[in-house]
Amino acid sequence: MKQISANKAFDGTQYVYSHASEACQCDMTFAIFMPPQAQTRKVPVLWYLSGLTCTHQNVMDKGEYRQIAAELGVAIVCPDTSPRGETVPDEPESWQFGKGAGFYLDATQEPFARNYNMQRYIIDELPALLKASDLALDFDRQSIFGHSMGGHGAITLALKNPERFASVSAFAPIAQPSTADWSRPALEKYLGPDQSAWRAYDATLLIEDGFKVKEMLVDQGTADSFLETGLRPQLLASACEKAGIPLTLNMRKGYDHSYFFISSFMAAHVRWHAARLG
Amino acid sequence: MKQISANKAFDGTQYVYSHASEACQCDMTFAIFMPPQAQTRKVPVLWYLSGLTCTHQNVMDKGEYRQIAAELGVAIVCPDTSPRGETVPDEPESWQFGKGAGFYLDATQEPFARNYNMQRYIIDELPALLKASDLALDFDRQSIFGHSMGGHGAITLALKNPERFASVSAFAPIAQPSTADWSRPALEKYLGPDQSAWRAYDATLLIEDGFKVKEMLVDQGTADSFLETGLRPQLLASACEKAGIPLTLNMRKGYDHSYFFISSFMAAHVRWHAARLG
Repeated sequence: MKQISANKAFDGTQYVYSHASEACQCDMTFAIFMPPQAQTRKVPVLWYLSGLTCTHQNVMDKGEYRQIAAELGVAIVCPDTSPRGETVPDEPESWQFGKGAGFYLDATQEPFARNYNMQRYIIDELPALLKASDLALDFDRQSIFGHSMGGHGAITLALKNPERFASVSAFAPIAQPSTADWSRPALEKYLGPDQSAWRAYDATLLIEDGFKVKEMLVDQGTADSFLETGLRPQLLASACEKAGIPLTLNMRKGYDHSYFFISSFMAAHVRWHAARLG
Repeated sequence: MKQISANKAFDGTQYVYSHASEACQCDMTFAIFMPPQAQTRKVPVLWYLSGLTCTHQNVMDKGEYRQIAAELGVAIVCPDTSPRGETVPDEPESWQFGKGAGFYLDATQEPFARNYNMQRYIIDELPALLKASDLALDFDRQSIFGHSMGGHGAITLALKNPERFASVSAFAPIAQPSTADWSRPALEKYLGPDQSAWRAYDATLLIEDGFKVKEMLVDQGTADSFLETGLRPQLLASACEKAGIPLTLNMRKGYDHSYFFISSFMAAHVRWHAARLG
């Protein structure tokens, strides 16, 4: 891990690190905020997965998570959304595929399988790297949340790793990526035409297939321009209801898809996770 | 005023507007956050002046002022730091002069005098524009603060307009721009070689010349790389002491010059102003 920056904030420290990634076969960058409590004890780890087009930086700049994380003593890790670099295959004209659009899956199709392994990166490689670091993190207490594509990532990773994550929440998650216009082509290019392979990366279909979490928190703006075609929280609500998963779905009147929305409810989400992280 | 964007945040609205400016002879852009209380009554106006290289957007993205402004019912106006556009004279290779570096003064020297009139813009033109708008603002209750060059701007404008601003504060202000390496050349180019003309734009010299405010709040990071050469809060402290102006100068251990520092103490400053705005 190479330290890119370290800035004191709210009595804690906002770090940015880069490192060579085996899962993504490129250098990866991530942000981690260490709250002041980490100076004297190990703190729980809250993973934040970002949405399409984002890097680690968007939520670090605009997410307004440091005040509440410092108050509650939670570390917040913000990974990038895809592999990066000149050698990574991409479709530069598309913001819904390739760089900035890794969809938190492990690609099986060429030429993407070599680099686009964000599930393995988030679940295996980055935790191992952080465990081996000097950062005072308690990996027995982890939770996960995210926004849009990152909300999809948080929910699918929590469903597949219920023993790992004490809680999961999302801002405006993509509820059913396998049938939404902006995500379906990406799943096909990363995973191939056999749609049975897509189910492992679709929150509603994972729930249909019996994957469970104890409960779920979702905030969704009613003025979100992606609400009806891309996000469709009603599909998640329906799947959760059938599966008996308690879902708190807050429809927030007048809020859009931006960080103005995310930051408005960030403190409530971090507080929700902290209560479950103990 | 042309509305560029409007995003709901913390139950209020973050607006961005542009307009043709007479003072700056160009189109200018500014941000204004209207708290939820403005839906039912006029709210006080807190001006935030940004530092070198910034536009209206940096503090809007990274300043973390909306939560506390919404809680306390204060509107926050964030103007740009200079005139903009192709026709505005500039020194593109310098970040300490020209665009992004208006220093909140009225230039007298050619070719800058036509556009670089940020004092007049902030004190006369933008308030008149906002007063004529539909925004529920109470111009009988105004305060001002800012960062670095904008801290210099806030303090000098408050000293020269004590009847206008109920309170003034600053994050890492340039205390004595007329003798600091990064600001002295700008004052000379905007105002000419006669240094007596610079005194009206220098906080410490204005105080020496008898300008007063009731009190002042300043936060300054001890790890700020500009502390010793560019900022020098001890000069402000000395001037305030001699003039009998109560200055609360908080030296914040380990904090730098960035928005990580500003955002950490934003709530305290907004709270301080709100208490004085009534």
